[in-house]
Amino acid sequence: MLNRVRSAVAHLVSSGGAPPSRPKSPDLPNATSAPPAAPPQAPRSPPAKAGSGGATPARTVEARASFSRPTFLQLSPGGLRRADDHAGRAVQSPPDTGRRLPWSTGYAEVINAGKSRHNEDQACCEVVYVEGRRSVSGAPREPSRGQGLCFYYWGLFDGHAGGGAAEMASRLLHRHIREQLKDLVEILQDPLPPPLCLPSTPGAPGSSDSSQLVGPQSCWSSQKEVTHESLVVGAIENAFQLMDEQMARERRGHQVEGGCCALVVVYLLGKVYVANAGDSRAIIVRNGEIIPMSREFTPETERQRLQLLGFLKPELLGGEFTHLEFPRRVQPKELGQRMLYRDQNMTGWAYKKIELEDLRFPLVCGEGKKARVMATIGVTRGLGDHNLRVCSSTLPIKPFLSCFPEVRVYDLTQYEHCPDDVLVLGTDGLWDVTSDCEVAATVDRVLSAYEPNDPSRYTALAQALVLGARGTPRDRGWRLPNNKLGSGDDISVFVIPLGGPGSYS
Amino acid sequence: MLNRVRSAVAHLVSSGGAPPSRPKSPDLPNATSAPPAAPPQAPRSPPAKAGSGGATPARTVEARASFSRPTFLQLSPGGLRRADDHAGRAVQSPPDTGRRLPWSTGYAEVINAGKSRHNEDQACCEVVYVEGRRSVSGAPREPSRGQGLCFYYWGLFDGHAGGGAAEMASRLLHRHIREQLKDLVEILQDPLPPPLCLPSTPGAPGSSDSSQLVGPQSCWSSQKEVTHESLVVGAIENAFQLMDEQMARERRGHQVEGGCCALVVVYLLGKVYVANAGDSRAIIVRNGEIIPMSREFTPETERQRLQLLGFLKPELLGGEFTHLEFPRRVQPKELGQRMLYRDQNMTGWAYKKIELEDLRFPLVCGEGKKARVMATIGVTRGLGDHNLRVCSSTLPIKPFLSCFPEVRVYDLTQYEHCPDDVLVLGTDGLWDVTSDCEVAATVDRVLSAYEPNDPSRYTALAQALVLGARGTPRDRGWRLPNNKLGSGDDISVFVIPLGGPGSYS
Repeated sequence: MLNRVRSAVAHLVSSGGAPPSRPKSPDLPNATSAPPAAPPQAPRSPPAKAGSGGATPARTVEARASFSRPTFLQLSPGGLRRADDHAGRAVQSPPDTGRRLPWSTGYAEVINAGKSRHNEDQACCEVVYVEGRRSVSGAPREPSRGQGLCFYYWGLFDGHAGGGAAEMASRLLHRHIREQLKDLVEILQDPLPPPLCLPSTPGAPGSSDSSQLVGPQSCWSSQKEVTHESLVVGAIENAFQLMDEQMARERRGHQVEGGCCALVVVYLLGKVYVANAGDSRAIIVRNGEIIPMSREFTPETERQRLQLLGFLKPELLGGEFTHLEFPRRVQPKELGQRMLYRDQNMTGWAYKKIELEDLRFPLVCGEGKKARVMATIGVTRGLGDHNLRVCSSTLPIKPFLSCFPEVRVYDLTQYEHCPDDVLVLGTDGLWDVTSDCEVAATVDRVLSAYEPNDPSRYTALAQALVLGARGTPRDRGWRLPNNKLGSGDDISVFVIPLGGPGSYS
Repeated sequence: MLNRVRSAVAHLVSSGGAPPSRPKSPDLPNATSAPPAAPPQAPRSPPAKAGSGGATPARTVEARASFSRPTFLQLSPGGLRRADDHAGRAVQSPPDTGRRLPWSTGYAEVINAGKSRHNEDQACCEVVYVEGRRSVSGAPREPSRGQGLCFYYWGLFDGHAGGGAAEMASRLLHRHIREQLKDLVEILQDPLPPPLCLPSTPGAPGSSDSSQLVGPQSCWSSQKEVTHESLVVGAIENAFQLMDEQMARERRGHQVEGGCCALVVVYLLGKVYVANAGDSRAIIVRNGEIIPMSREFTPETERQRLQLLGFLKPELLGGEFTHLEFPRRVQPKELGQRMLYRDQNMTGWAYKKIELEDLRFPLVCGEGKKARVMATIGVTRGLGDHNLRVCSSTLPIKPFLSCFPEVRVYDLTQYEHCPDDVLVLGTDGLWDVTSDCEVAATVDRVLSAYEPNDPSRYTALAQALVLGARGTPRDRGWRLPNNKLGSGDDISVFVIPLGGPGSYS
């Protein structure tokens, strides 16, 4: 998110000074976490690390301020130094040797051109086992064959104002999702509609619903139908919130720096759930056709939501900001003149007489990549940012940011996918300089150069996308073949095949 | 809006008991209002009636409580009685003789099957002249040739809990739009981009903007580009608000009963603006293709907006309602159990432990046509409803309703339209029983039966659409050919040709 958090970076502690390598993480690539040795007991407590045994401390963020890259890259200390080199900007991918990522997923990344000390993007790719919560009998919990569920998980986290939030989210968000799904393990595998009401003790049979309807005189003449799919969506939404709350709790030790956008894919029971909070993007390229799977959340796309909040809760503006938008800064000498404006209800513009409070700085200003909330931050959804304040002020910005993703669902069983059909996830470093159509063209060009059953083709595609957005060093900058500037931002790309040899099972 | 305002109707005064005919209105069909004899001076004051001369009273709603139909129907007292007959439900259209509606627009309507005493839909079709506001010299205002602007205007107003709001909106909303456009007459005809700032005295030259930019250290490195189109959108948005405010001012004499949905089309300078607040709908049928030009605003489509407001301003819930949604009413005996819910941030569902305040009635409940805000009203945008309160309570509902339309723009110059291309507007009486595709099929079937240059074909189409939604009396009800129930609601339809003999000029 180049240029987007200038002010925030300026007054927040950035991750730095730490050694370039970190202790080897127990998050093994491709490792199925099932069954976890010590699953967390309550959903709101930080999930313990799988595989780390009973010695896992409750505080999970100790010694995390150091620079790290995704464990599935399997970087040596030397590799980590190369991945951290702003001058060379070498593209990183998982090694050809060893286990591949699930579904033969392709991945590539490159560090920024100098805007921040380290690569503040993070990524995660896991197969996660969800054990049903069955504590009703008081019997010791143990995995029961056929009772659990597996989901496939991919996450991209684009950090700002420090790498702490992105790093933490990449380690823990899928565990929050697992935690939320635990109550649903039996329900999701039952072809009957989900019970609307469950007894207070998890595990006991659900209460009958139809007998508990109110009379026909109410507008509730029937109960609402709730789908299995909407339960998974709700689980993902709440997992984002719980992840954000965990960051709030653990920020005090200054281990959780800044915030991050989060773009997450969950594959469960035939459906792909794409959850996005921030300005990363996901598209499906299917038989050459582009299917958008996310939209971006920025001060421009969320202007009316932000303005409405400022209007309803003016105390959040601290007397420093106005919730109105103007096409440029209002000057004191223009008092009494009429300037174009728009408020929380308007998509068009109209003239209004300028009054004293219109001279305050607008809550939302700027255009495109320069758009800002409170002159500070250029994304409006994501995780973290609990310490973010307006420059030279104590005014918190977090109330205007939402941690909730928009979740889109794609039913993988509704279409016969071929090996060239892919879901592409990218941080804004990719999309700032690459259109959806250009990505689709690269998909076609690269995949057609490989055999359909060659599992390395998706990594080659991810690398081509990252290289195409980075460009090559020329004329004092990184430039694309058309001589335009490449992206100087961190760039991270997942290519998830939707059919073919590396497919799901 | 059958079944949608049951509770509201029950405790609000309904229009009734008045004589079935009304004094002939000076709103003449097809009359160009240009130039008005006594234009209102200030945009926030009620616009005076065109053609009524200097004797127009400031209070415009006197003697309006009686039943009326659109003046362009030119109904005789006998015709008005037939239009008001629930048993016969005769379809009404403008007479073949006399002046046609602008663009040879087709129109048809039918009264409901008995849900309210009168037809609570209203309609308006006008050509409106906008004289520029030029008061800078203090010279007497007079129309200057070539200085003004004309817009074509169509409006459908679906009333509820009384016919007053719909009747008032049908008489006055286009005048509010004209008022808002007065400042823009010169700007819209100037090919240069609109000035961002105007001097305080309307009419003086606009101030130069580029010299007033703040320094590059700000995130306002440039000014935002504002289009002519977005000024028209802003004018329409503000006109809706001013119409609503006028209803609030004038409601005290009980002349403005209930509220209404408003669906409005403005054609100005080559572009069609479709503004919708409520559950009416507009679609374009172009070469057989359906282009949606509006969306509906209901408790279901606006659930998250309503819940957010209830969450941020809990005092609006009066301790009687919860902002959470449940799939059915929570029973006191279920306290402590876990029930599915969703809040203002969620599109999915999750389980929560039922607490005491979850037993309150939910702000949003029900499904489809039975969905309600505060158990009372089934639309969430529109005009009026300032007196609307929760049944058996003093809690006002208006804070949850929005008077702002969503405005979509269609550039008529971007496509060569043929005589069969039409914009269809209908109140929910049409759309409750007719799909977009069925409307498109009727467009094809009816128009192909007429010569392309026969101007009566659009009225025939409107009549066919209304008849197709009403059905015929059979088996103790109004039934469609497939034996399903027809709409028992008021049904009103405009068919606006986008090309051909009756076209705009």
